[in-house]
Amino acid sequence: MHTTRLALVTIIAEPVLEGRITRELRQLGATGFTVVEGRGEGSRGRHAAEIPGVNVRIETIVGHALAQRILEHIAHAYFEDFGVIAFTSEVAVVRSAKYTAPPESR
Amino acid sequence: MHTTRLALVTIIAEPVLEGRITRELRQLGATGFTVVEGRGEGSRGRHAAEIPGVNVRIETIVGHALAQRILEHIAHAYFEDFGVIAFTSEVAVVRSAKYTAPPESR
Amino acid sequence: MHTTRLALVTIIAEPVLEGRITRELRQLGATGFTVVEGRGEGSRGRHAAEIPGVNVRIETIVGHALAQRILEHIAHAYFEDFGVIAFTSEVAVVRSAKYTAPPESR
Repeated sequence: MHTTRLALVTIIAEPVLEGRITRELRQLGATGFTVVEGRGEGSRGRHAAEIPGVNVRIETIVGHALAQRILEHIAHAYFEDFGVIAFTSEVAVVRSAKYTAPPESR
Repeated sequence: MHTTRLALVTIIAEPVLEGRITRELRQLGATGFTVVEGRGEGSRGRHAAEIPGVNVRIETIVGHALAQRILEHIAHAYFEDFGVIAFTSEVAVVRSAKYTAPPESR
Repeated sequence: MHTTRLALVTIIAEPVLEGRITRELRQLGATGFTVVEGRGEGSRGRHAAEIPGVNVRIETIVGHALAQRILEHIAHAYFEDFGVIAFTSEVAVVRSAKYTAPPESR
């Protein structure tokens, strides 16, 4: 079974940001995403928004260059004012074409 | 603390497929699995089933050879007709015997 | 975008253990955590508690040394009597200071 290494980007944010972040992922070039609801606590006192409470975990699988652009965007747009965290991990996928938009649709 | 490297296999599928896929994971040799409910969007227009909507994220930790067999099965059984995605990542576990069935039970 | 490699620790446990485990994560030095609810099945007959049913997936991002201490604690405190599993994977984060407590707060 041929597999391709891609990056899984995980963004954990307040629920109110879900629609905005998933639209931005599409605009940056992600072909899909999943969202799971959870709860949690962040580092105390660092950010006003990092109070205990509900959050959404938004995940997308993309190429490594796009993963870097997504991290840069999330850090720039949200880290100052929101209790958002973002990280990447390595995954191996089957049928990598599912995760990469054709050039003409970018 | 001694740890063992195993493969975490993640399968994201329509909820209607949960029972069938988890039975198949057992038959292939997985000793356990977890299921989390979410929602998401896939690559637009590629598969009729990849409409926005709810999904289940099925995860199992297995040896690398079994992870390959699971990916092959999922690709063969579901990729043509369903909006299913499957990927693996590397994890380090404590007490690896929890994740590998004894030979006589296979 | 500068990223730092840290460890994502995942603990899957019975819901009744959530409060105890998250308090212990804080005491060990984790600066935050997230919790997602799911369901699942473990290895049959190995532990009385590993019956099919609901579970919580507790995740925390920490340095590698703390990840080892967390795995040791979880194995020691829970593996004998509960159907708990614990594993780590490698992640790359932006702004690693979010995940590491300042020395004076340890």
